[in-house]
Amino acid sequence: MESVKYLLDESRIPKAWYNVASDLPQPASPPLHPGTLQPIGPDDLAPIFPMSLILQEVSQEREIEIPTPVRDVYRQWRPTPLFRARRWEKLLDTPARIYYKYEGVSPAGSHKPNTAVPQAFYNKEAGTKRLATETGAGQWGSSLAMACAFFGIECKVFMVRVSYDQKPYRRALMETFGASVTASPSTETEAGRSILAEHPDSRGSLGIAISEAVEVAARDADTKYSLGSVLNHVLLHQTVIGLETLEQMKMAGDYPEILVGCTGGGSNFAGIAFPFIGRNLRGQASTRVVAVEPSACPSLTRGRFAYDFGDTARLTPLVKMHTLGSSFIPPGIHAGGLRYHGMAPLVSHLLDIGAIEATNVQQLEAFAAGVNFARAEGIVPAPEANHAVAGALAEALKCKQEGVSRSILFNLCGHGHFDMQAYIDYNAGKLQNYEYPDEEIAMALAGLPPVGAA
Amino acid sequence: MESVKYLLDESRIPKAWYNVASDLPQPASPPLHPGTLQPIGPDDLAPIFPMSLILQEVSQEREIEIPTPVRDVYRQWRPTPLFRARRWEKLLDTPARIYYKYEGVSPAGSHKPNTAVPQAFYNKEAGTKRLATETGAGQWGSSLAMACAFFGIECKVFMVRVSYDQKPYRRALMETFGASVTASPSTETEAGRSILAEHPDSRGSLGIAISEAVEVAARDADTKYSLGSVLNHVLLHQTVIGLETLEQMKMAGDYPEILVGCTGGGSNFAGIAFPFIGRNLRGQASTRVVAVEPSACPSLTRGRFAYDFGDTARLTPLVKMHTLGSSFIPPGIHAGGLRYHGMAPLVSHLLDIGAIEATNVQQLEAFAAGVNFARAEGIVPAPEANHAVAGALAEALKCKQEGVSRSILFNLCGHGHFDMQAYIDYNAGKLQNYEYPDEEIAMALAGLPPVGAA
Repeated sequence: MESVKYLLDESRIPKAWYNVASDLPQPASPPLHPGTLQPIGPDDLAPIFPMSLILQEVSQEREIEIPTPVRDVYRQWRPTPLFRARRWEKLLDTPARIYYKYEGVSPAGSHKPNTAVPQAFYNKEAGTKRLATETGAGQWGSSLAMACAFFGIECKVFMVRVSYDQKPYRRALMETFGASVTASPSTETEAGRSILAEHPDSRGSLGIAISEAVEVAARDADTKYSLGSVLNHVLLHQTVIGLETLEQMKMAGDYPEILVGCTGGGSNFAGIAFPFIGRNLRGQASTRVVAVEPSACPSLTRGRFAYDFGDTARLTPLVKMHTLGSSFIPPGIHAGGLRYHGMAPLVSHLLDIGAIEATNVQQLEAFAAGVNFARAEGIVPAPEANHAVAGALAEALKCKQEGVSRSILFNLCGHGHFDMQAYIDYNAGKLQNYEYPDEEIAMALAGLPPVGAA
Repeated sequence: MESVKYLLDESRIPKAWYNVASDLPQPASPPLHPGTLQPIGPDDLAPIFPMSLILQEVSQEREIEIPTPVRDVYRQWRPTPLFRARRWEKLLDTPARIYYKYEGVSPAGSHKPNTAVPQAFYNKEAGTKRLATETGAGQWGSSLAMACAFFGIECKVFMVRVSYDQKPYRRALMETFGASVTASPSTETEAGRSILAEHPDSRGSLGIAISEAVEVAARDADTKYSLGSVLNHVLLHQTVIGLETLEQMKMAGDYPEILVGCTGGGSNFAGIAFPFIGRNLRGQASTRVVAVEPSACPSLTRGRFAYDFGDTARLTPLVKMHTLGSSFIPPGIHAGGLRYHGMAPLVSHLLDIGAIEATNVQQLEAFAAGVNFARAEGIVPAPEANHAVAGALAEALKCKQEGVSRSILFNLCGHGHFDMQAYIDYNAGKLQNYEYPDEEIAMALAGLPPVGAA
């Protein structure tokens, strides 16, 4: 019945974030201005982001210092624990050594506060009065709402309609933190109104909600925009996860042979993986790094690596990423945080250069893995995190079949306390899998902007 | 923006529970057999509890060793953090030094696993195949369900009807852990059927649910009963909370002048308070200890200290406690874990001998305090815990009025992730207060059994 956690003293919270751009053998393609198709400069982004975040977005420095007020907030829950999943190993009867980093101990219940807190901090410093953002399942929205409450900034959240309806508890959490929450598409923006005009029953998507939040930030002088994933600076902030894990694996006297994370926009995956990938790229290690995405939104495994818009209304710069096309509306699976048509440019680039692998799992397989894990470890994972659990489970069973002990590390990026409707539906047999015919994916990709096509 | 947590290494998990019975200046009154009215012996309890727990129930030893397999499970989340509420102090603009021990980091989200794990362990050792229990809000039921999953025991939970309807996510959590959950009153027991015959629309109560679970345990040979509060051995297991806090207050270089806990059956309150009360009783300290209960179920502040049944169907032994009468059905407030007609005999005895104080707060005051706390500290408390938050808040504001800095410690016994419907209702202005006229309380007390009346 032994369970083992590896805890670092709070003095060991990283003092700097790790920037994987510094270790890339070839740089990622730059974002392009949607009008000129030229690489955008910092000034192009100034209307919606504070300059400190824009500079992080384009930095090539390996280390970027974490401001003291940010570390002071991190101290409430960081360093987060690394667990050895001994009871789960026993239940699976596997020779694998399974470790999981648990980000669900943050007050908002996921890894998202790692970037919400610095984003709120830098905006406060820059005089921002209000932040507008989008949220899928609500992990991001509730984290930004909390960070805004800490720093005294107003928070406006456009929540994807399907999650708004599925997850009233997440909305209540955001409102308890003082945020204003609107179902997206809404009538509050041009983008929302134009979608609703065409699709009055639209269930929304992250792409649409981003359009609405960006529009509000561009329109209102006191309002900036905040994104919970995809962008370089967001992924950068998440690297505290992997930096801590490196230290904790040392405490455990082990090193991951396989590293697994789930991918939606890419931020939790980047958070745990980038510091390990950096060591791979520098020739110091050779961990297999596996990104697991839902079959219902397979941007890495079935999308195209191409320039595309980050949002549905095509308000954002063009970024080169694995994408299903910005008009792709994924089905309303419960892993709302993974329902994004694209993938972070840095994660996409790493797949392109062969530094990571990608796979996809079906919704039912992900939930089965999550329930199995919960009964052994006591933690009910978020539906998004279930994809990482399923990925780790597959590797652990492979170890068993082959009679080989390998060390497997995965990121348990959040708990499922606000997602229990998903488990109710799963237990009742109401969830289903989604398998796209190739033609359907091809059709979605046909709408990609004809930019920089190789 | 500083937040400060005091963390102990896992080697500092207590090796023994603290038994307050050893330090009482006069012993608490013994439980009586409902038939003979004589003090019950261990054999009377043997049909429903394993002998190891019965012996703990009557022990007078100061320290009772925690078995290694129990400590091994505790290690997953214990020692829990003690926080200095610096952001909340700042928001309240109080000179008070506010500390909170946070039990919500357990996988089930509350202090309840502290006793669920040893109860499952001792039952497993004794060969128990199935545990039956009751649950109010579901904190207890989900904790026992989790512990049973860890130790391979079946778990049958009678969940108070009003909570069963209010909190479907809690039920889903129990079912995800593999437990079987039935709304109480149910048709599965004599006790349930007889209540339903008289009150077909009964919303249930902990007293009724206890009757059902005890009946099942007494009826089925392979089934024992497990209680989440009230009994001496349950309170004993919770003392890990206070024992850790004693060490953590030393780390903080401080000692609580005021200690606050919320009380339903008394277990989280006892958990944090007993080790401090022991020091008071031994003349080593003089902390003011305050129990905060809901106005809607005021057993300590408006009940009578008398022999009463622990359940509605009068199946349990008679225990001397502060009670509103075992037929008292509290209104369906959201703090379901505090909806119990009686109070732990040890907590009742301590109030009787003047070792603790008691106060009650209204539901709206409790939620207002909880929201205020959440915006500063990021943690949304369980509705039960809001009563402790309100108690601490009142003391902090008193410090401000008087211009005095006092150290205030409270137990944040669980988070409210599964209770967000309560916050939705609170935010929508749908919650209400309850104030009983004296005559109504007197009427409820008139039904007390005429036993040992002074």
